[in-house]
Amino acid sequence: DSKLKIFSLNSNNPLAKEIADEMGVELGKSSVKHFSDGEVQISIEESIRGMDVFIVQSTSAPVNEHLMELLIMVDAVKRASARTVNVVMPYYGYARQDRKAKAREPITAKLVANLLETAGATRVIVLDLHAPQIQGFFDILIDHLVAVPLLAEHFGSKGFNEDELVIVSPDHGGVTRARKMAERLKAPIAIIDKRRPKPNVAEVMNIVGNVDGKVCILIDDIIDTAGTITIGAEALIKSGAKEVYACCSHPVLSGPAIERIENSSIKELVVTNTIQLSEEKLSPKIKQLSVAKLMADAISRVYENKSVSTLFD
Amino acid sequence: DSKLKIFSLNSNNPLAKEIADEMGVELGKSSVKHFSDGEVQISIEESIRGMDVFIVQSTSAPVNEHLMELLIMVDAVKRASARTVNVVMPYYGYARQDRKAKAREPITAKLVANLLETAGATRVIVLDLHAPQIQGFFDILIDHLVAVPLLAEHFGSKGFNEDELVIVSPDHGGVTRARKMAERLKAPIAIIDKRRPKPNVAEVMNIVGNVDGKVCILIDDIIDTAGTITIGAEALIKSGAKEVYACCSHPVLSGPAIERIENSSIKELVVTNTIQLSEEKLSPKIKQLSVAKLMADAISRVYENKSVSTLFD
Ligand SMILES: Nc1ncnc2c1ncn2[C@@H]1O[C@H](COP(=O)(O)O)[C@@H](O)[C@H]1O
Ligand SMILES: Nc1ncnc2c1ncn2[C@@H]1O[C@H](COP(=O)(O)O)[C@@H](O)[C@H]1O
Repeated sequence: DSKLKIFSLNSNNPLAKEIADEMGVELGKSSVKHFSDGEVQISIEESIRGMDVFIVQSTSAPVNEHLMELLIMVDAVKRASARTVNVVMPYYGYARQDRKAKAREPITAKLVANLLETAGATRVIVLDLHAPQIQGFFDILIDHLVAVPLLAEHFGSKGFNEDELVIVSPDHGGVTRARKMAERLKAPIAIIDKRRPKPNVAEVMNIVGNVDGKVCILIDDIIDTAGTITIGAEALIKSGAKEVYACCSHPVLSGPAIERIENSSIKELVVTNTIQLSEEKLSPKIKQLSVAKLMADAISRVYENKSVSTLFD
Repeated sequence: DSKLKIFSLNSNNPLAKEIADEMGVELGKSSVKHFSDGEVQISIEESIRGMDVFIVQSTSAPVNEHLMELLIMVDAVKRASARTVNVVMPYYGYARQDRKAKAREPITAKLVANLLETAGATRVIVLDLHAPQIQGFFDILIDHLVAVPLLAEHFGSKGFNEDELVIVSPDHGGVTRARKMAERLKAPIAIIDKRRPKPNVAEVMNIVGNVDGKVCILIDDIIDTAGTITIGAEALIKSGAKEVYACCSHPVLSGPAIERIENSSIKELVVTNTIQLSEEKLSPKIKQLSVAKLMADAISRVYENKSVSTLFD
């Protein structure tokens, strides 16, 4: 029989199920429960001796809970004599704490990498890290998938007129991502350029590039409280944009996000399912695309020892 | 100025404050907040360069939250150029997952030790580990304090008649602990011996030792759901015990614990403050003793590079 086994933890069971379905395998039998005092109790209910095990878990909210589940599962899988322990993290939490921006700050994204290695992960598969440099935080192998093709395909199928489309980065940090999307859609890019003229004076929004009369697609990696994206959308409309769409890989959507999106002039927000959306986040404005096929391909290739790099772009 | 700095995280601020007061120092300035999506945001608000830093945190419920706070703080302290990073864990969560009792179980107590070392802890100070073997899970220095003297002193001051007292272990695992208490109070011991005559037949409780007409003191390390201790108390009463007291180091007190204790024949439950008790757990039957002086002594001795072993017994 197959020596490949995929386990799901609690953060995104529907995605794990979909990945297994894509690959034509059953999810491994395991359970994550809690003791009366809240401690995680993991049990793996079938032999995995000598197997290549893939554990699917996004470290989305509640992040500490999901991360500890993952670390404990990795420990259990390692001790159960698996051949390899592959961690599939569609969403990598704590990725925004990737440097010391101020004195005496932790670098939690690096801590998470170290914790995964210490627990016994032998390889990780991630998607759209907030900073691609996080790959270098690992000493074990890491595969870095990207969702831009998926997002671009969705917008491509809308049949927009090529010369009315413009891809917009909501800040300087995201220009490379916007450029990749623009290449796929054969569109130009624009950048929302925020500048604070003096301390304690409101930011000035300046749009670099022409958006007048255009259909704009804002692209970011993470949409969290949706402040950046909704303010950006209003700035585009003020600058004459005809319509504004938005998209991202990881729909964190915390706090006021849903309300802001619904009250914004964003026509549609396209996200992926790296993070499972709770009932109350299923706004009619939000369209969720599945990364299951992409992840399933990556898992198959890793398992078959083939190159995953064709899935990077 | 002093090169010693004590920080508190969120699990047990009153104890950390008390420890600092005992030592005549102020707690270091730091904050643990959460970003909108729930990720932990730690900031250390004063220089700790070259200092010996002690971080006080029990990994009590919510255990994953408290453990991640601790790991991130250790990372931050390490990166802020502290000379040593000492983790003071009055209560060590996940200690009961200290071995593979069944196939394919994790050994989470060992995982926690590895995570602390990986984050950058250089030494840990703990109190009454569920299994003393957990000391060997660490490659860094570990100091293991015990609360038996504190608990014994409390009962000693009640002026019981020496020959009416008996110290009772609620199970086989706790006999060594009961023996230590008994030595201090010059009392004999008894053991509650549970035995399942056949599978799926109710356990039989047998009391090894004489408790008839005696004042019994049940002692355990952790009282969690309080099943063991309250059932044990009833068995003692049935065997003729005059009065039953109970004590433990770590009042986990989850689920039905408080209700069970209040409805039991336990006259008083004596615990320590390694775990902070929430409002609704402050039963009039529960008396909480402070380990602040014990922990403060240990911190001072570690800081002054003196032996801590006199605090072990
Ligand atoms: N979970 C989070 N939510 C909001 N901001 C964060 C979070 N984690 C880190 N940050 C901050 O976001 C900034 C990094 O974001 P960026 O500049 O987009 O890479 C840093 O200043 C961090 O302090
Ligand atoms: N947080 C917990 N709550 C209740 N039981 C636990 C917990 N952690 C581990 N255990 C179980 O408790 C047993 C160990 O307890 P002990 O025999 O007292 O050392 C093991 O069988 C564990 O599966």
